[in-house]
Amino acid sequence: MSERSSYPASLNRLIDSLARLPGIGRKTAERLSVSLLDWPDEQLLDFGQQLQNLHQNVRYCTCCGNFAEAELCPLCLSPNRQRHLLCVVEQPTQIPVFENACCYQGLYHVLGGKLSPLNGRGPESLRLAELHKRLESGEVKEMILATSSDVEGEATAHFLAAEFAREGLTITRLAAGIPAGADLTYADGATLALAMSGRRDFS
Amino acid sequence: MSERSSYPASLNRLIDSLARLPGIGRKTAERLSVSLLDWPDEQLLDFGQQLQNLHQNVRYCTCCGNFAEAELCPLCLSPNRQRHLLCVVEQPTQIPVFENACCYQGLYHVLGGKLSPLNGRGPESLRLAELHKRLESGEVKEMILATSSDVEGEATAHFLAAEFAREGLTITRLAAGIPAGADLTYADGATLALAMSGRRDFS
Repeated sequence: MSERSSYPASLNRLIDSLARLPGIGRKTAERLSVSLLDWPDEQLLDFGQQLQNLHQNVRYCTCCGNFAEAELCPLCLSPNRQRHLLCVVEQPTQIPVFENACCYQGLYHVLGGKLSPLNGRGPESLRLAELHKRLESGEVKEMILATSSDVEGEATAHFLAAEFAREGLTITRLAAGIPAGADLTYADGATLALAMSGRRDFS
Repeated sequence: MSERSSYPASLNRLIDSLARLPGIGRKTAERLSVSLLDWPDEQLLDFGQQLQNLHQNVRYCTCCGNFAEAELCPLCLSPNRQRHLLCVVEQPTQIPVFENACCYQGLYHVLGGKLSPLNGRGPESLRLAELHKRLESGEVKEMILATSSDVEGEATAHFLAAEFAREGLTITRLAAGIPAGADLTYADGATLALAMSGRRDFS
Protein backbone atom coordinates (compact mmCIF):
# COMPACT_ATOMS: atom_id res chain seq x y z
CA MET A 1 0.00 0.00 0.00
CA SER A 2 1.65 3.19 -1.15
CA GLU A 3 1.05 6.14 1.09
CA ARG A 4 -0.28 8.12 -1.87
CA SER A 5 -2.87 5.72 -3.24
CA SER A 6 -4.25 5.26 0.26
CA TYR A 7 -6.11 1.99 -0.42
CA PRO A 8 -4.77 -1.26 1.03
CA ALA A 9 -3.14 -3.47 -1.61
CA SER A 10 -5.74 -6.23 -1.21
CA LEU A 11 -8.56 -3.75 -1.77
CA ASN A 12 -6.75 -2.45 -4.85
CA ARG A 13 -6.48 -5.99 -6.21
CA LEU A 14 -10.22 -6.53 -5.74
CA ILE A 15 -10.87 -3.21 -7.49
CA ASP A 16 -8.65 -4.35 -10.38
CA SER A 17 -10.61 -7.60 -10.71
CA LEU A 18 -13.98 -5.86 -10.71
CA ALA A 19 -12.77 -3.23 -13.18
CA ARG A 20 -11.94 -6.05 -15.61
CA LEU A 21 -15.68 -6.77 -16.00
CA PRO A 22 -17.38 -5.25 -19.05
CA GLY A 23 -18.94 -1.84 -18.41
CA ILE A 24 -17.40 -1.51 -14.94
CA GLY A 25 -15.00 1.45 -14.75
CA ARG A 26 -12.45 2.18 -12.04
CA LYS A 27 -14.79 4.40 -9.98
CA THR A 28 -17.64 1.88 -10.09
CA ALA A 29 -15.23 -0.91 -9.14
CA GLU A 30 -14.16 1.15 -6.11
CA ARG A 31 -17.79 1.67 -5.10
CA LEU A 32 -18.57 -2.04 -5.51
CA SER A 33 -15.48 -3.07 -3.52
CA VAL A 34 -16.40 -0.79 -0.64
CA SER A 35 -19.94 -2.17 -0.63
CA LEU A 36 -18.51 -5.71 -0.56
CA LEU A 37 -16.75 -4.81 2.71
CA ASP A 38 -20.22 -4.59 4.30
CA TRP A 39 -21.27 -8.09 3.19
CA PRO A 40 -21.40 -10.75 5.90
CA ASP A 41 -18.55 -13.24 5.85
CA GLU A 42 -20.61 -16.19 4.63
CA GLN A 43 -21.94 -14.29 1.62
CA LEU A 44 -18.39 -13.33 0.61
CA LEU A 45 -17.29 -16.96 0.99
CA ASP A 46 -20.23 -18.10 -1.16
CA PHE A 47 -19.55 -15.48 -3.84
CA GLY A 48 -15.86 -16.41 -3.94
CA GLN A 49 -16.72 -20.09 -4.18
CA GLN A 50 -19.16 -19.47 -7.03
CA LEU A 51 -16.40 -17.76 -8.99
CA GLN A 52 -13.81 -20.40 -8.27
CA ASN A 53 -16.15 -23.23 -9.25
CA LEU A 54 -17.65 -21.49 -12.27
CA HIS A 55 -15.76 -23.47 -14.89
CA GLN A 56 -16.35 -26.79 -13.14
CA ASN A 57 -20.08 -26.14 -12.73
CA VAL A 58 -21.03 -24.42 -15.95
CA ARG A 59 -20.19 -26.02 -19.26
CA TYR A 60 -21.65 -25.83 -22.73
CA CYS A 61 -24.06 -28.45 -24.02
CA THR A 62 -22.13 -30.57 -26.55
CA CYS A 63 -25.26 -30.80 -28.72
CA CYS A 64 -26.84 -27.34 -28.84
CA GLY A 65 -24.20 -25.08 -27.22
CA ASN A 66 -26.52 -23.87 -24.43
CA PHE A 67 -25.20 -23.54 -20.87
CA ALA A 68 -25.23 -26.93 -19.16
CA GLU A 69 -24.24 -28.56 -15.91
CA ALA A 70 -23.68 -31.92 -17.58
CA GLU A 71 -22.76 -33.08 -21.07
CA LEU A 72 -26.22 -32.16 -22.37
CA CYS A 73 -28.46 -29.29 -21.30
CA PRO A 74 -31.96 -29.93 -19.84
CA LEU A 75 -33.60 -28.72 -23.05
CA CYS A 76 -31.79 -31.29 -25.21
CA LEU A 77 -32.54 -33.99 -22.62
CA SER A 78 -36.21 -33.10 -22.19
CA PRO A 79 -38.73 -35.59 -23.65
CA ASN A 80 -41.28 -32.76 -23.94
CA ARG A 81 -39.63 -30.72 -26.69
CA GLN A 82 -40.70 -30.89 -30.34
CA ARG A 83 -37.66 -32.39 -32.04
CA HIS A 84 -38.67 -31.45 -35.58
CA LEU A 85 -38.21 -27.73 -34.77
CA LEU A 86 -34.75 -26.17 -34.46
CA CYS A 87 -34.30 -22.52 -33.55
CA VAL A 88 -30.85 -21.14 -34.41
CA VAL A 89 -29.67 -18.34 -32.10
CA GLU A 90 -26.40 -16.46 -31.73
CA GLN A 91 -25.77 -16.75 -28.00
CA PRO A 92 -26.84 -19.06 -25.16
CA THR A 93 -28.15 -15.99 -23.31
CA GLN A 94 -30.86 -15.65 -25.95
CA ILE A 95 -32.43 -19.02 -25.13
CA PRO A 96 -34.05 -17.84 -21.85
CA VAL A 97 -35.63 -14.96 -23.79
CA PHE A 98 -37.53 -17.49 -25.92
CA GLU A 99 -38.21 -19.77 -22.98
CA ASN A 100 -39.64 -16.97 -20.85
CA ALA A 101 -41.88 -15.86 -23.73
CA CYS A 102 -43.38 -19.41 -23.75
CA CYS A 103 -43.78 -19.18 -27.53
CA TYR A 104 -41.65 -22.13 -28.63
CA GLN A 105 -41.42 -25.81 -27.72
CA GLY A 106 -38.70 -26.99 -30.09
CA LEU A 107 -34.94 -27.34 -29.69
CA TYR A 108 -32.20 -24.74 -30.08
CA HIS A 109 -28.82 -24.45 -31.73
CA VAL A 110 -26.32 -21.83 -30.54
CA LEU A 111 -24.05 -20.46 -33.27
CA GLY A 112 -21.70 -18.74 -30.82
CA GLY A 113 -21.83 -15.43 -32.70
CA LYS A 114 -22.67 -14.06 -36.10
CA LEU A 115 -20.72 -13.43 -39.30
CA SER A 116 -18.75 -10.22 -38.91
CA PRO A 117 -16.06 -9.91 -41.60
CA LEU A 118 -14.94 -6.50 -40.28
CA ASN A 119 -14.10 -8.13 -36.95
CA GLY A 120 -12.46 -11.11 -38.65
CA ARG A 121 -15.31 -13.49 -37.76
CA GLY A 122 -16.09 -15.79 -40.68
CA PRO A 123 -18.09 -19.06 -40.92
CA GLU A 124 -15.28 -20.97 -39.18
CA SER A 125 -16.07 -19.06 -35.97
CA LEU A 126 -19.63 -20.47 -35.86
CA ARG A 127 -20.77 -23.89 -34.60
CA LEU A 128 -21.65 -25.09 -38.11
CA ALA A 129 -20.12 -28.59 -38.02
CA GLU A 130 -22.39 -29.40 -35.05
CA LEU A 131 -25.38 -27.98 -36.93
CA HIS A 132 -24.59 -30.09 -40.02
CA LYS A 133 -24.43 -33.16 -37.80
CA ARG A 134 -27.77 -32.41 -36.17
CA LEU A 135 -29.52 -31.90 -39.50
CA GLU A 136 -28.07 -35.09 -41.04
CA SER A 137 -30.52 -37.46 -39.34
CA GLY A 138 -33.47 -35.73 -41.04
CA GLU A 139 -35.39 -35.49 -37.74
CA VAL A 140 -35.46 -31.69 -37.97
CA LYS A 141 -38.13 -30.53 -40.42
CA GLU A 142 -37.98 -26.78 -39.82
CA MET A 143 -34.99 -24.61 -39.01
CA ILE A 144 -35.94 -21.17 -37.65
CA LEU A 145 -33.25 -18.53 -38.18
CA ALA A 146 -33.36 -16.32 -35.10
CA THR A 147 -30.22 -14.26 -35.65
CA SER A 148 -30.36 -10.52 -34.89
CA SER A 149 -32.17 -8.20 -37.27
CA ASP A 150 -29.06 -6.06 -37.79
CA VAL A 151 -26.87 -6.18 -40.91
CA GLU A 152 -24.59 -8.91 -39.57
CA GLY A 153 -27.49 -11.00 -38.29
CA GLU A 154 -29.23 -10.73 -41.67
CA ALA A 155 -26.05 -11.72 -43.49
CA THR A 156 -25.65 -14.71 -41.17
CA ALA A 157 -29.27 -15.76 -41.85
CA HIS A 158 -28.72 -15.55 -45.62
CA PHE A 159 -25.51 -17.54 -45.31
CA LEU A 160 -27.22 -20.25 -43.25
CA ALA A 161 -30.19 -20.43 -45.63
CA ALA A 162 -27.82 -21.07 -48.55
CA GLU A 163 -25.54 -23.42 -46.61
CA PHE A 164 -28.30 -25.69 -45.29
CA ALA A 165 -30.80 -25.66 -48.18
CA ARG A 166 -31.90 -29.28 -48.71
CA GLU A 167 -34.89 -31.43 -49.60
CA GLY A 168 -37.34 -31.83 -46.72
CA LEU A 169 -36.02 -28.96 -44.57
CA THR A 170 -38.09 -25.78 -44.29
CA ILE A 171 -35.97 -22.77 -43.38
CA THR A 172 -37.84 -19.85 -41.80
CA ARG A 173 -36.87 -16.50 -40.35
CA LEU A 174 -38.42 -14.63 -37.40
CA ALA A 175 -40.86 -11.95 -38.57
CA ALA A 176 -39.55 -8.38 -38.50
CA GLY A 177 -41.85 -5.43 -37.91
CA ILE A 178 -43.43 -3.12 -35.36
CA PRO A 179 -42.76 -4.35 -31.80
CA ALA A 180 -45.73 -5.19 -29.58
CA GLY A 181 -47.27 -2.17 -27.85
CA ALA A 182 -45.32 0.36 -29.90
CA ASP A 183 -46.67 3.78 -30.84
CA LEU A 184 -46.21 4.24 -34.61
CA THR A 185 -45.36 7.91 -34.02
CA TYR A 186 -41.97 6.80 -32.76
CA ALA A 187 -41.31 3.91 -35.15
CA ASP A 188 -37.98 4.26 -36.97
CA GLY A 189 -37.93 4.21 -40.76
CA ALA A 190 -36.04 0.93 -41.09
CA THR A 191 -38.52 -0.94 -38.88
CA LEU A 192 -41.46 0.63 -40.66
CA ALA A 193 -40.05 -0.39 -44.05
CA LEU A 194 -39.62 -3.99 -42.80
CA ALA A 195 -43.17 -3.99 -41.43
CA MET A 196 -44.54 -2.62 -44.70
CA SER A 197 -42.72 -5.08 -46.96
CA GLY A 198 -43.73 -7.97 -44.69
CA ARG A 199 -47.41 -6.96 -44.37
CA ARG A 200 -49.86 -9.82 -44.17
CA ASP A 201 -53.38 -10.57 -45.29
CA PHE A 202 -55.73 -9.56 -42.46
CA SER A 203 -59.04 -10.93 -43.76
CA MET B 1 -31.94 -25.93 -13.19
CA SER B 2 -35.60 -25.61 -14.11
CA GLU B 3 -36.31 -26.28 -17.73
CA ARG B 4 -38.00 -22.89 -18.02
CA SER B 5 -35.32 -20.62 -16.57
CA SER B 6 -32.76 -22.30 -18.81
CA TYR B 7 -29.68 -21.17 -16.83
CA PRO B 8 -27.77 -23.74 -14.78
CA ALA B 9 -28.35 -23.36 -11.04
CA SER B 10 -24.74 -22.43 -10.34
CA LEU B 11 -24.86 -19.67 -12.94
CA ASN B 12 -28.11 -18.43 -11.38
CA ARG B 13 -26.46 -18.31 -7.96
CA LEU B 14 -23.57 -16.23 -9.35
CA ILE B 15 -26.09 -13.91 -11.02
CA ASP B 16 -27.88 -13.56 -7.64
CA SER B 17 -24.61 -12.62 -5.93
CA LEU B 18 -23.69 -10.03 -8.54
CA ALA B 19 -27.21 -8.57 -8.53
CA ARG B 20 -26.81 -7.91 -4.80
CA LEU B 21 -24.16 -5.27 -5.58
CA PRO B 22 -25.36 -1.67 -5.65
CA GLY B 23 -26.38 -0.43 -9.08
CA ILE B 24 -26.21 -3.90 -10.65
CA GLY B 25 -29.59 -5.08 -11.91
CA ARG B 26 -30.56 -8.58 -12.94
CA LYS B 27 -29.79 -8.07 -16.64
CA THR B 28 -26.36 -6.56 -15.92
CA ALA B 29 -25.60 -9.39 -13.49
CA GLU B 30 -26.43 -11.88 -16.26
CA ARG B 31 -24.11 -10.08 -18.67
CA LEU B 32 -21.29 -9.96 -16.10
CA SER B 33 -21.73 -13.66 -15.23
CA VAL B 34 -21.52 -14.67 -18.86
CA SER B 35 -18.38 -12.57 -19.32
CA LEU B 36 -16.86 -14.25 -16.25
CA LEU B 37 -17.25 -17.60 -18.03
CA ASP B 38 -14.61 -16.38 -20.48
CA TRP B 39 -12.05 -15.54 -17.78
CA PRO B 40 -9.09 -17.89 -17.47
CA ASP B 41 -9.21 -20.24 -14.49
CA GLU B 42 -6.44 -18.55 -12.52
CA GLN B 43 -8.11 -15.13 -12.71
CA LEU B 44 -11.36 -16.60 -11.39
CA LEU B 45 -9.46 -18.30 -8.57
CA ASP B 46 -7.75 -15.00 -7.73
CA PHE B 47 -11.00 -13.04 -7.80
CA GLY B 48 -12.71 -15.62 -5.59
CA GLN B 49 -9.80 -15.56 -3.17
CA GLN B 50 -9.85 -11.77 -2.97
CA LEU B 51 -13.52 -11.87 -1.97
CA GLN B 52 -13.06 -14.64 0.57
CA ASN B 53 -10.10 -12.90 2.21
CA LEU B 54 -11.56 -9.42 2.06
CA HIS B 55 -12.47 -9.17 5.72
CA GLN B 56 -9.16 -10.65 6.88
CA ASN B 57 -7.12 -8.32 4.67
CA VAL B 58 -8.99 -5.05 4.89
CA ARG B 59 -9.76 -3.54 8.26
CA TYR B 60 -10.43 -0.04 9.50
CA CYS B 61 -7.68 2.02 11.16
CA THR B 62 -8.52 2.16 14.89
CA CYS B 63 -7.29 5.75 15.01
CA CYS B 64 -8.67 7.56 11.96
CA GLY B 65 -11.14 5.05 10.49
CA ASN B 66 -9.38 4.83 7.11
CA PHE B 67 -8.97 1.45 5.37
CA ALA B 68 -6.00 -0.38 6.85
CA GLU B 69 -4.22 -3.70 6.58
CA ALA B 70 -2.99 -3.50 10.18
CA GLU B 71 -4.22 -1.84 13.37
CA LEU B 72 -3.20 1.59 12.05
CA CYS B 73 -3.28 2.86 8.46
CA PRO B 74 -0.08 4.03 6.69
CA LEU B 75 -1.17 7.66 6.96
CA CYS B 76 -1.47 7.52 10.77
CA LEU B 77 1.86 5.67 10.98
CA SER B 78 3.74 7.98 8.61
CA PRO B 79 6.38 10.25 10.20
CA ASN B 80 5.95 12.71 7.30
CA ARG B 81 2.45 13.94 8.03
CA GLN B 82 1.74 17.25 9.78
CA ARG B 83 0.15 16.15 13.05
CA HIS B 84 -1.29 19.54 13.95
CA LEU B 85 -3.72 19.35 11.00
CA LEU B 86 -6.80 17.11 11.09
CA CYS B 87 -9.14 16.83 8.12
CA VAL B 88 -12.57 15.40 9.01
CA VAL B 89 -14.22 13.47 6.16
CA GLU B 90 -17.36 11.38 5.89
CA GLN B 91 -16.04 8.22 4.27
CA PRO B 92 -12.67 6.46 3.90
CA THR B 93 -13.15 6.58 0.12
CA GLN B 94 -12.76 10.37 0.27
CA ILE B 95 -9.19 10.20 1.61
CA PRO B 96 -7.64 9.14 -1.75
CA VAL B 97 -9.36 12.13 -3.38
CA PHE B 98 -7.35 14.46 -1.12
CA GLU B 99 -4.20 12.38 -1.41
CA ASN B 100 -4.31 12.32 -5.20
CA ALA B 101 -4.82 16.09 -5.29
CA CYS B 102 -1.52 16.45 -3.33
CA CYS B 103 -2.96 19.47 -1.51
CA TYR B 104 -2.79 18.31 2.10
CA GLN B 105 -0.13 16.80 4.33
CA GLY B 106 -1.99 16.47 7.62
CA LEU B 107 -3.96 13.60 9.18
CA TYR B 108 -7.56 12.52 8.61
CA HIS B 109 -10.52 11.49 10.68
CA VAL B 110 -13.35 9.46 9.14
CA LEU B 111 -16.80 10.15 10.61
CA GLY B 112 -18.40 7.14 8.95
CA GLY B 113 -21.28 9.20 7.56
CA LYS B 114 -23.08 12.46 8.13
CA LEU B 115 -26.03 13.56 10.25
CA SER B 116 -29.22 12.56 8.50
CA PRO B 117 -32.21 12.76 10.87
CA LEU B 118 -34.65 11.70 8.12
CA ASN B 119 -32.72 8.43 7.78
CA GLY B 120 -32.44 8.01 11.54
CA ARG B 121 -28.73 8.81 11.62
CA GLY B 122 -27.90 11.02 14.63
CA PRO B 123 -24.57 11.92 16.28
CA GLU B 124 -24.34 8.42 17.83
CA SER B 125 -23.81 7.00 14.31
CA LEU B 126 -20.59 9.05 13.83
CA ARG B 127 -17.10 8.25 15.14
CA LEU B 128 -17.19 11.15 17.63
CA ALA B 129 -15.77 9.40 20.72
CA GLU B 130 -12.61 8.65 18.74
CA LEU B 131 -12.46 12.27 17.55
CA HIS B 132 -12.81 13.57 21.12
CA LYS B 133 -9.96 11.30 22.19
CA ARG B 134 -7.71 12.50 19.36
CA LEU B 135 -8.31 16.16 20.15
CA GLU B 136 -7.73 15.70 23.91
CA SER B 137 -3.93 15.68 23.69
CA GLY B 138 -3.92 19.19 22.21
CA GLU B 139 -1.55 18.16 19.41
CA VAL B 140 -4.13 19.08 16.75
CA LYS B 141 -4.23 22.86 16.23
CA GLU B 142 -6.56 23.01 13.23
CA MET B 143 -9.55 20.82 12.41
CA ILE B 144 -10.69 21.13 8.79
CA LEU B 145 -14.34 20.20 8.26
CA ALA B 146 -14.48 18.47 4.89
CA THR B 147 -18.03 17.13 4.98
CA SER B 148 -20.13 17.39 1.80
CA SER B 149 -21.51 20.75 0.73
CA ASP B 150 -25.08 19.44 0.72
CA VAL B 151 -27.66 20.19 3.45
CA GLU B 152 -26.72 17.18 5.59
CA GLY B 153 -22.99 17.82 5.21
CA GLU B 154 -23.44 21.47 6.21
CA ALA B 155 -25.54 20.46 9.22
CA THR B 156 -22.84 17.98 10.24
CA ALA B 157 -20.16 20.68 9.92
CA HIS B 158 -22.19 23.06 12.11
CA PHE B 159 -22.75 20.32 14.66
CA LEU B 160 -19.01 19.48 14.78
CA ALA B 161 -18.02 23.15 15.04
CA ALA B 162 -20.27 23.54 18.10
CA GLU B 163 -19.35 20.19 19.64
CA PHE B 164 -15.56 20.67 19.43
CA ALA B 165 -15.19 24.41 20.01
CA ARG B 166 -12.34 24.89 22.49
CA GLU B 167 -9.39 27.13 23.35
CA GLY B 168 -6.41 26.62 21.03
CA LEU B 169 -8.28 24.71 18.27
CA THR B 170 -8.97 26.49 14.99
CA ILE B 171 -11.94 24.97 13.17
CA THR B 172 -12.07 25.62 9.41
CA ARG B 173 -14.31 24.56 6.53
CA LEU B 174 -13.37 23.83 2.91
CA ALA B 175 -14.11 26.82 0.66
CA ALA B 176 -17.27 26.58 -1.46
CA GLY B 177 -17.55 28.27 -4.85
CA ILE B 178 -17.04 27.90 -8.60
CA PRO B 179 -15.18 24.66 -9.44
CA ALA B 180 -11.85 24.90 -11.28
CA GLY B 181 -12.21 25.25 -15.05
CA ALA B 182 -15.95 25.89 -14.92
CA ASP B 183 -17.77 28.10 -17.42
CA LEU B 184 -19.92 30.58 -15.46
CA THR B 185 -22.65 30.26 -18.08
CA TYR B 186 -23.50 26.87 -16.61
CA ALA B 187 -22.97 27.64 -12.91
CA ASP B 188 -26.02 26.80 -10.80
CA GLY B 189 -27.57 29.47 -8.63
CA ALA B 190 -26.70 27.85 -5.29
CA THR B 191 -23.00 27.57 -6.20
CA LEU B 192 -22.93 31.11 -7.54
CA ALA B 193 -24.51 32.42 -4.32
CA LEU B 194 -21.87 30.58 -2.24
CA ALA B 195 -19.09 31.95 -4.45
CA MET B 196 -20.49 35.47 -4.19
CA SER B 197 -20.89 35.44 -0.41
CA GLY B 198 -17.40 33.94 -0.02
CA ARG B 199 -15.66 36.36 -2.44
CA ARG B 200 -12.12 37.33 -1.50
CA ASP B 201 -9.90 40.38 -1.79
CA PHE B 202 -7.97 40.07 -5.06
CA SER B 203 -5.59 43.02 -4.76
